[in-house]
Amino acid sequence: MVENPSSTAPSQPSGPDPELFDKVVNLCKRRGFVYPSAEIYGGFRSTYDYGPLGSLMLRNVKDAWWRSMVQLRHDVVGLDAAILSPPQVWEASGHLANFSDPLVDCTNCKTRHRQDNLDDPNKCPSCGKSGTFTEARAFNLMFKTHAGPIEGAGAEVYLRPETAQGMFINFKNIINTTRKRPPFGIAQIGKSFRNEITPGNFVFRTREFEQMELEFFVHPDESQQWYEYWLKERFDWYLDHGIPEDKLMLRPHDDDELSHYSSGTSDVEFMFPWGWGELEGIANRGDYDLTQHSEHAGEKLEYFDQANNERYTPHVIEPAAGATRSMMAFLMAAYDEEIVNDDTRTVLRLDPRLAPYKVAVLPLSKKDTLQPLAHEILGMLQPHYMTEYDETQAIGRRYRRQDEIGTPLCVTVDFESLDDNAVTVRDRDTMEQDRVAVAGLVDHIASKLGF
Amino acid sequence: MVENPSSTAPSQPSGPDPELFDKVVNLCKRRGFVYPSAEIYGGFRSTYDYGPLGSLMLRNVKDAWWRSMVQLRHDVVGLDAAILSPPQVWEASGHLANFSDPLVDCTNCKTRHRQDNLDDPNKCPSCGKSGTFTEARAFNLMFKTHAGPIEGAGAEVYLRPETAQGMFINFKNIINTTRKRPPFGIAQIGKSFRNEITPGNFVFRTREFEQMELEFFVHPDESQQWYEYWLKERFDWYLDHGIPEDKLMLRPHDDDELSHYSSGTSDVEFMFPWGWGELEGIANRGDYDLTQHSEHAGEKLEYFDQANNERYTPHVIEPAAGATRSMMAFLMAAYDEEIVNDDTRTVLRLDPRLAPYKVAVLPLSKKDTLQPLAHEILGMLQPHYMTEYDETQAIGRRYRRQDEIGTPLCVTVDFESLDDNAVTVRDRDTMEQDRVAVAGLVDHIASKLGF
Repeated sequence: MVENPSSTAPSQPSGPDPELFDKVVNLCKRRGFVYPSAEIYGGFRSTYDYGPLGSLMLRNVKDAWWRSMVQLRHDVVGLDAAILSPPQVWEASGHLANFSDPLVDCTNCKTRHRQDNLDDPNKCPSCGKSGTFTEARAFNLMFKTHAGPIEGAGAEVYLRPETAQGMFINFKNIINTTRKRPPFGIAQIGKSFRNEITPGNFVFRTREFEQMELEFFVHPDESQQWYEYWLKERFDWYLDHGIPEDKLMLRPHDDDELSHYSSGTSDVEFMFPWGWGELEGIANRGDYDLTQHSEHAGEKLEYFDQANNERYTPHVIEPAAGATRSMMAFLMAAYDEEIVNDDTRTVLRLDPRLAPYKVAVLPLSKKDTLQPLAHEILGMLQPHYMTEYDETQAIGRRYRRQDEIGTPLCVTVDFESLDDNAVTVRDRDTMEQDRVAVAGLVDHIASKLGF
Repeated sequence: MVENPSSTAPSQPSGPDPELFDKVVNLCKRRGFVYPSAEIYGGFRSTYDYGPLGSLMLRNVKDAWWRSMVQLRHDVVGLDAAILSPPQVWEASGHLANFSDPLVDCTNCKTRHRQDNLDDPNKCPSCGKSGTFTEARAFNLMFKTHAGPIEGAGAEVYLRPETAQGMFINFKNIINTTRKRPPFGIAQIGKSFRNEITPGNFVFRTREFEQMELEFFVHPDESQQWYEYWLKERFDWYLDHGIPEDKLMLRPHDDDELSHYSSGTSDVEFMFPWGWGELEGIANRGDYDLTQHSEHAGEKLEYFDQANNERYTPHVIEPAAGATRSMMAFLMAAYDEEIVNDDTRTVLRLDPRLAPYKVAVLPLSKKDTLQPLAHEILGMLQPHYMTEYDETQAIGRRYRRQDEIGTPLCVTVDFESLDDNAVTVRDRDTMEQDRVAVAGLVDHIASKLGF
């Protein structure tokens, strides 16, 4: 049971690493982090279900964000707005007119392509012919459906392509029903839907995905300083939750990428196995959103500061993160292999806050004699932590199973435990084992995990 | 600051109470629990957004369910499946063929009605004429949209009308990637969508809603005993979280309500202001779902029990709860008014686990002298509890504000606090106040709340 890492694998380079992609995707499917949706029906392209481990980890990512953005602050409130929303919202936001990709058809082979993704704008990548494309046509990325009792003729309704508009259209409700005043924010976690032409890279770009967005409303004179504040805050959040510094970058948008209304946007990017990819965009959106909705709704979305007798439309700083792709980044960053006793040990070195299970209870043998104590310990830990229980196969293999899914601590109940009322606590990263009295186990685990 | 309830209102009757409905709906809008969706655009019928307090409380309801159903058990795993799903799933489940309401058109006034809701099956409620209805036509309740790059001609896809099918189609994935064996369950929380003809009663029946569903897979011989187990477990869950016994009922379905495949279904019903309404259905679904998907997918969804050398299709017990309507029931049950010092005090007597905020920090005066200590205490509490901070208006009014949103404890920082380094902790229900040393505040609150 002694496990000495006789040598460790070289630390991963900070550049692209295609092998890593396959390893993590494979682990995700094999261990129940992520399954292709409707797999028994051949799958539903680029849609995924989060399995037992993935649903736990995704909850942890979202909870960590909510804790940082809502619970630990007193200038941010939460919101949970509807996914279905009427066309007026998307007309005002500009999505109906502009949220589209340019598509071209090849008149020779009848295939359809996204114009801005073509290597050669004239030559069809399917049939190889040149000059066969039609004019580009805008294809709106919003999913549309109908609500109401008349099939095909009900009210048009859209699945939101971002959670942000829910915050803008509730700005007045929140000013009226809370005591929050600028600078203050509205935070929301929820699903969004985009009919992407080219989804891909596993859960990085999917038609259905989950966002974690904050809209932070400030006095116009203070927008630059708050923009800078949120750049640092959000960059540090990823570092604090386990992304190494050499795999994280803050990339300011070039002038030609910048929305016409934004005076500054930066992306937090992660070095994915295929290169840098966006985890979060932080934008200084000015007064664009509130002004647009004021004009379209005919209702002034502004703030009157009584103390200074000043009326103004707040500017908005928006840190908009992807929950599902952040989870993928945390998995990629945590994946590690090392040689232990001539064997390769796969370890997910996840921050304990993000790990699906915090602790696993492992009776050394499946024999009935150990079960009562093992179950007692399981029952002791469950109120505090997501706890795994595993009693089959050799203990060494069970350690490996927990390493591979990132469980920070394993508690082994052995035959000595019945005499000394103590158990062995093994650390995922160091593989060190401590003998701990059952009576002090919860405290020991809390001090190891830090929560 | 002394608050003596000079008399208390009579306890609410357990029958319908239409006034209560208006009071709670009004409170929800006024204090930011629930807003009508897209209100600045005139609203989007029967769709709601959960505001700062509602989003916190809804999280608490869902977390309480997840804790009971997943964290505190070792025979249930989580899942978070996609909302978008292909037609094959709904063909197998029977939703494409059968998930519909019968609609009739009035040939005289051209209005449309749900046949099974008509008081008089012959007489139109709009124009009053008799014998003017067309034959009933089935109207499917699923929302349909299109995925893929060809507008109007992409692949048909449905918004799930229930989360349950996600569990059935992942049965094999979960058997293959976890060590769970029957009896075991798959739990899921998430949004579902039904194009209801007659949504209404605030958030009770909405087109977009949130479910908390468990599919529990058992040996066929054990299905009746597990059905009974879950009836009791789920009924007790509502009692344990604050629904009084005289407002809760377990109602077995009549034979004519029962699905053809179900050998037993019971609803947990709550006495809403308009009468009894379903919070959760618990069904013994037999092997219907796994068999349907086995036949349609051409892949056997069954379990081979090696120890007993037995192959079987598990039976399913399904406790399916509504998260949003449960939240509404908890609010209705918690609402109370009592007379205190000739004034009416409104109190939400929510279980502390469900209350949006657990504690509020209230500096007695807005003066700068109290702010540093009040902020220090806020910072002390935030890592442990969702904490509100309120420094405006008289302290009595602030207590009432917290009572009205169900905050179990208020911590008042007064001028004496600067000398004795102690604060006053006020209890929402008893209005009793304790003087507590700042150093022992977190422990005091934990013992008052019980977590």
